[in-house]
Amino acid sequence: MGALYMGNKPLLKVDSKVSIVMDQLLRLLHYCGLPEGDVDFINSDGKTMNKLLLEANPRMTLFTGSSRVADKLAADLKGRVKLEDAGFDWKILGPDVQEEDYVAWVCDQDAYACSGQKCSAQSILFMHENWAKTSLITKIQDLADRRKLEDLTVGPVLTVTTGAILEHINQLLQIPGSKLLFGGEPLENHSIPQIYGAIKPTAVYVPVEEIVKDNNYDLVTKEIFGPFQIITDYKKEQLPLVLDILEKMHAHLTAAVVSNDAHFLQEVIGKTVNGTTYAGLRGRTTGAPQNHWFGPAGDPRGAGIGTPEAIKLVWSCHREIIYDLGPLPKHWEIPPST
Amino acid sequence: MGALYMGNKPLLKVDSKVSIVMDQLLRLLHYCGLPEGDVDFINSDGKTMNKLLLEANPRMTLFTGSSRVADKLAADLKGRVKLEDAGFDWKILGPDVQEEDYVAWVCDQDAYACSGQKCSAQSILFMHENWAKTSLITKIQDLADRRKLEDLTVGPVLTVTTGAILEHINQLLQIPGSKLLFGGEPLENHSIPQIYGAIKPTAVYVPVEEIVKDNNYDLVTKEIFGPFQIITDYKKEQLPLVLDILEKMHAHLTAAVVSNDAHFLQEVIGKTVNGTTYAGLRGRTTGAPQNHWFGPAGDPRGAGIGTPEAIKLVWSCHREIIYDLGPLPKHWEIPPST
Amino acid sequence: MGALYMGNKPLLKVDSKVSIVMDQLLRLLHYCGLPEGDVDFINSDGKTMNKLLLEANPRMTLFTGSSRVADKLAADLKGRVKLEDAGFDWKILGPDVQEEDYVAWVCDQDAYACSGQKCSAQSILFMHENWAKTSLITKIQDLADRRKLEDLTVGPVLTVTTGAILEHINQLLQIPGSKLLFGGEPLENHSIPQIYGAIKPTAVYVPVEEIVKDNNYDLVTKEIFGPFQIITDYKKEQLPLVLDILEKMHAHLTAAVVSNDAHFLQEVIGKTVNGTTYAGLRGRTTGAPQNHWFGPAGDPRGAGIGTPEAIKLVWSCHREIIYDLGPLPKHWEIPPST
Amino acid sequence: MGALYMGNKPLLKVDSKVSIVMDQLLRLLHYCGLPEGDVDFINSDGKTMNKLLLEANPRMTLFTGSSRVADKLAADLKGRVKLEDAGFDWKILGPDVQEEDYVAWVCDQDAYACSGQKCSAQSILFMHENWAKTSLITKIQDLADRRKLEDLTVGPVLTVTTGAILEHINQLLQIPGSKLLFGGEPLENHSIPQIYGAIKPTAVYVPVEEIVKDNNYDLVTKEIFGPFQIITDYKKEQLPLVLDILEKMHAHLTAAVVSNDAHFLQEVIGKTVNGTTYAGLRGRTTGAPQNHWFGPAGDPRGAGIGTPEAIKLVWSCHREIIYDLGPLPKHWEIPPST
Repeated sequence: MGALYMGNKPLLKVDSKVSIVMDQLLRLLHYCGLPEGDVDFINSDGKTMNKLLLEANPRMTLFTGSSRVADKLAADLKGRVKLEDAGFDWKILGPDVQEEDYVAWVCDQDAYACSGQKCSAQSILFMHENWAKTSLITKIQDLADRRKLEDLTVGPVLTVTTGAILEHINQLLQIPGSKLLFGGEPLENHSIPQIYGAIKPTAVYVPVEEIVKDNNYDLVTKEIFGPFQIITDYKKEQLPLVLDILEKMHAHLTAAVVSNDAHFLQEVIGKTVNGTTYAGLRGRTTGAPQNHWFGPAGDPRGAGIGTPEAIKLVWSCHREIIYDLGPLPKHWEIPPST
Repeated sequence: MGALYMGNKPLLKVDSKVSIVMDQLLRLLHYCGLPEGDVDFINSDGKTMNKLLLEANPRMTLFTGSSRVADKLAADLKGRVKLEDAGFDWKILGPDVQEEDYVAWVCDQDAYACSGQKCSAQSILFMHENWAKTSLITKIQDLADRRKLEDLTVGPVLTVTTGAILEHINQLLQIPGSKLLFGGEPLENHSIPQIYGAIKPTAVYVPVEEIVKDNNYDLVTKEIFGPFQIITDYKKEQLPLVLDILEKMHAHLTAAVVSNDAHFLQEVIGKTVNGTTYAGLRGRTTGAPQNHWFGPAGDPRGAGIGTPEAIKLVWSCHREIIYDLGPLPKHWEIPPST
Repeated sequence: MGALYMGNKPLLKVDSKVSIVMDQLLRLLHYCGLPEGDVDFINSDGKTMNKLLLEANPRMTLFTGSSRVADKLAADLKGRVKLEDAGFDWKILGPDVQEEDYVAWVCDQDAYACSGQKCSAQSILFMHENWAKTSLITKIQDLADRRKLEDLTVGPVLTVTTGAILEHINQLLQIPGSKLLFGGEPLENHSIPQIYGAIKPTAVYVPVEEIVKDNNYDLVTKEIFGPFQIITDYKKEQLPLVLDILEKMHAHLTAAVVSNDAHFLQEVIGKTVNGTTYAGLRGRTTGAPQNHWFGPAGDPRGAGIGTPEAIKLVWSCHREIIYDLGPLPKHWEIPPST
Repeated sequence: MGALYMGNKPLLKVDSKVSIVMDQLLRLLHYCGLPEGDVDFINSDGKTMNKLLLEANPRMTLFTGSSRVADKLAADLKGRVKLEDAGFDWKILGPDVQEEDYVAWVCDQDAYACSGQKCSAQSILFMHENWAKTSLITKIQDLADRRKLEDLTVGPVLTVTTGAILEHINQLLQIPGSKLLFGGEPLENHSIPQIYGAIKPTAVYVPVEEIVKDNNYDLVTKEIFGPFQIITDYKKEQLPLVLDILEKMHAHLTAAVVSNDAHFLQEVIGKTVNGTTYAGLRGRTTGAPQNHWFGPAGDPRGAGIGTPEAIKLVWSCHREIIYDLGPLPKHWEIPPST
C-alpha cells in the first residue's frame, strides 16, 4: 500500500504458500475502487522472479525475507533494494525486578503467540541475576502449558519440520551447561501434515559464557521460525559479555530492554543498533507496528513500515526543486567570467 | 564532515590527483581540534581500495564518481552504498523569452566556469524555438570569447586530453545537420602538459531529431568533463521528444528549466526525475549547494549533500525506540493466550 | 473538535440563531461515543456569556465573530483569547488575462454562493486594466442573473435587512464616479420575513481613486454579510494605490491574487498580510478549508482552523521537558559557587 | 534578536537600571553592521511607554516582567501581547535518594547563584520524606556558608531592600511549625547602598500542611527576587497535597522534578503545567536556555525564547498561501451555481 500511496506502479510477488490470500486481497481492493492497472501481481518461484527482476531492472525492490536471498538480490540489482530482513530478536531483563506476572506473560506472548511465527518473535531471553532468583521461568512455563491445539494457541509451523526442530534442540543440549527448560516434545493427537512442524512451546537454557564462544555462536543464534526460544542469565558484571553477543548478530530487527532503570536503559540502548526497540518494564519484542516505525537499523538498505516517514523513505525519495523566478536586480549588468 | 557529525568513524579515500589537498585539510582539522583517531585516511589506487572494502565490510560506503564503478561497488558491497553519480546535466529554455543577457551569462557560467569541470556543469542546452529566433547563441559565443588563459577563465582539463575532445567533436559532426557553433580549437601559447586537455570553450549543435536516434544517443549524451556542451533547439510540438531524451538518460543529477511559465514548469518538472533541479527564469545547473540539498533522485542508492536532511539520510538511519515504562493498569490480570 | 483532540474540556457557545443545530450535533456526538462530561454547552445572550467568562476565567477563549466584540473580549480576558475575525475579503486580478469564463465563474461563486454569507466571501474585486477591457463584468452579471430563489441559489440574508442593504447601496452611489453594475433590487414573490434581507446579487462600481479617500474608505470597506460586492479597476501604475487600500484594512482573513505572472504574485503577496491567500489563475476567496490552514495573519491573537498545526496552535501550547537523568561523570566533585 | 531575525522592526525598552548596558549592546550591533534604522530604542518610565504603546498600536508587544503589569498591558493592547512572566519556581525531590552531594550543590546554585536574581531561581523546595531523613539540608547550608561578598558569590539585591526581606522572613516565622533553617541575617562590612538589599543566603522551613492554607498561601508563594527560598517536606501520601499547591500557583515558568523514578516523573509532570521543566536526578530550575525552549506554558499569551520554534511563535505567524495556477481540465465547462 505504501508503494501505491507514493504513486509507484508496483509489481507484487508473495510466497506461493500465501499467494491465494493476496489474490483475494487484490480482488477486494479492485472492488473498492483500485484501478486494475495500478498494481501488477505475479505468482512464480524465486528463480523466475529473480530473472524477471534482472530483465525489468526496476528502480526499487523491497524484499522481505531471509538474509541470504537479500544479499544475493542486493548484488544482482546493484543495490537498488530495500530490505526488511530476518529477525533473531533478543530481550534483556534489567536489574530492577518488578511486576513478575506481567513480564512472564509478555515473554510467553512474544515467544509463543502465533506459534512463534512472527519476524519479531522473541528468540533469546537474557535475565539479569536478580530475575534469575525469582520464579519467572516457572511462570513462563506455566503460561506455555496453558497453550493447546484446541484453541489454536499452538499450531502448525509452516517452514520448519518437527524433526528439524528436535534435531536443533539436541545439538543445543550438547553444549556444556545447557538444559531443556520445558517443551521439546512433538504435539500429539493431531492431523498436521508431516511437511509442517508440530511441537510444544519450548525453551532451552544455554550458559551465557557458552553462547559467546565461536563454535557455539552460530548454532545458538540460528533463527527457528516456530515456538522456540533460548533462555540464559547473566551476572551484573557480565553485561559487557551480553552486549558483545548482541553486537555480533548480523540481523538487527527488533529488541526489548525490560527495565525502568534509566542508567541500564541508556547503557543497553546506547551500545546496540537494533531497529525497533522496546524499552521499559512493559517492553516487548512483538509490538503493534501500526503505531510506530517497524524495521531494522544500521544498514543503508534497511526498510521501514508503518509510518509516513517509513513509507516516504522506502517508496519515495527526496527531490530538490529550487525556484528562482527573479526579477533581476534593477540595473543588473553582466559580471566578469569565472 | 557529514559522516563525522553523525558520529561515524569514516575511512576517507580521494582520487590520488587531489590527495595532497585532502592531506592538508585533515592536518588543518587536527590543528583545529579534531581527535586524530576520528577519521582514517588512505592513499591507494582503486583496486586496492576495492579489496579493502570487501575485507573490512563497512556498514556504509559513499561513492562519488563514475556510474560504472558505482554499479560494481554496489554489487560488491551488496548494496550497502550511497551514490553521488556522474552528471550529464541538461538545461531547457521555455517559451517565454526574457532577459536574454542574463540567460546567456548563466549559460556561459554553467558550461564553462572552472573549464566545465563541475559535476553540475551544463552538458546540453535545449532551446525553445522562440529562443532560437533570438541572438542568444551569439551572446553565449561572445561570452565564451571573453575567456582566456591569462586570467584562468579557461584552464587545463584534468581528465580528458585535447585529442580526445577533438575526436569527440569530430564524431558529433558526422551526425547529419550538426555543426560547430564555436570553439573546437586547441588553446595556444601555453605550457599545459600533454596529459591534460587544453581547448577553447566549445559548443556543437545537433538537431533534436538526431539526438533521440539510438545510434546517436550514447555519443551525444557522453559526458565530457571539460569546457564543452551540446546545443539544440525544439519546436513547441517537439517537447514530448525532448522529454523522451531526458527520460532515457541514466544519471539524474542536476537540471534547469528556464522559464517563468507556470504550466511549462509543471509539464517539464512533472515528467522528469532529476535530483537538484533549478526552475525559473534565473535557473542554472551549477548552483550553490551550501544553500540546498544537492544530489540525484529516483534511485534508492541516491545520496545527498548540503543539508541536515541529506546528512541524516546518508550518514545516519532511523532507529525507533518505544518507551513503555508503565505503570500497569490497576487490577491488571493475566489475559488468555493468543 | 480541535479543542477536544488536544485534551481540553471546552465550554461551547454559538449564536442563538444556530444553537438548535449545534444541540443536534452534540447529541450525535454523544450517540457516537463522546463522553457526556467532555464538553459543556450553553445557550445564552452575549452579555450573560461575557459575565460567565469573567467569572470562570478560562485559560483560553476562541472567539469567531465581529472585530468589535473581539477587541472587547481581548481586553476583558486580558489577552487570553484567539480570534477568527471578520472578513472584508479582496480579490485582485493581475495583468495576464486568461480563461475569462473560469475567472468569471469563480467571482460569481465567491461573491454570491450561499448568498454571500461566508466569512471568506469576496467583498471587493480589483481588476487590472487589461481585464477591464474584456467582457468579464458582463459575464459575471450573466452568471448572477442565473441565480434564483426557486433553486436556492439566492436566499434570505440572516443578519442584514433589505432596507439596510439598499441604504448602503444608495450611500455608495453618492461617491463621484460610482455606479450600479447590476442587482440593487429586492427579491420579489417570496415569503421571507421582514427581519431578514432579500435582495438580488448586487455589484457596485467605485473608482479606485475614490476608495482610498478618508471620507469614503470606511463606507466602501464595510462588510455586508450578503450577496453584495464592490468592483473597481486599476491601471498598471496604480498598483501601489491598491496595495495602500489593502494595507489599511484592519481585518486580514482571506484574499485572492488571480494571476500566473510570477512577479505580480511576488509583488502583491509580499506587500500584503492577509491570512489564507489564494494565488494563481484559479485563485478564489472561498476555498476548501478542510484542505489547508484557514485563518487571519499578522496578529498574535490570530487563530487558525483546519490543519494539525492550526489545532495545536490554538488548543495546545509548547511545554519543554528537559530530561537529565545522569549518570554523573565518574569522579565528579563539587565545583566552586557562582 | 529574534524579532530582527523574523524581519520585524522592533522598538526596544528595558528597565532604566540596565538601559546603559543595552545602549552599549546596540552600539556594538551597529558596529558589527546592523543598519541603524532596523531597531528603535527608547529610555523612559513605564507610564510614558504605556502611553506610547497605546498611540503607536504595535502589532505585537513582548513583555518580560511582573504579572501585574503584564495583565494591564494585555488589556490595554487588547491582547496583542506575548508574556514572559514572573517565576515562583519550584523543585520537588522524589522518593529515590541518590547522589546527595550533587543534588545539594544544584539546590545551592539554583537558589543562590547570582544572589537568586534569576527568573528561574528556585523559590521553593519540596523534599520527599526519604530525602528529609538525609543530611541534605546540612549540605545545602554548608554550601550556602561558602558564599561571601569577596568573591561575589553573594551580592546586592537590586529590587528588594534588606528590611523588606527580613520583614518577609518574620511574617513567615509566624506560621505554626515554621523555622529559620539558615541565613536570615544582613550582610556585614559592606558598602552596598540602602536602596539595595544585602542579606545572607536564607532558607525558611514551612510545613506543607500550612502552605496549602488560604491564609498562608499568598505569603509563602510570594516571589522574593533575592537569595531566599522556602524549604518543606512531604510524606509519600501527601503528594496530592503538593500537586494542589503547585496547581494553585498562577505563574508557571520553570520547575524541576528531581528523580529517576519513571512513575514519579509521570505523576508529577502529568499533573503540572509549568513551562520549562527539568526532569531527572540532575534536574535544576536554572538551566541553560541557549540549549532549549525557555518560557511559561498553559497560557495563550505565553512567550518562549531560545529556539527557532520559540522565535517563530513569538515574532512571526503562520500565513497560508495556496497556489492554484491551473491549468484548467481540458473541456472544462461552467457548472451550475450554488
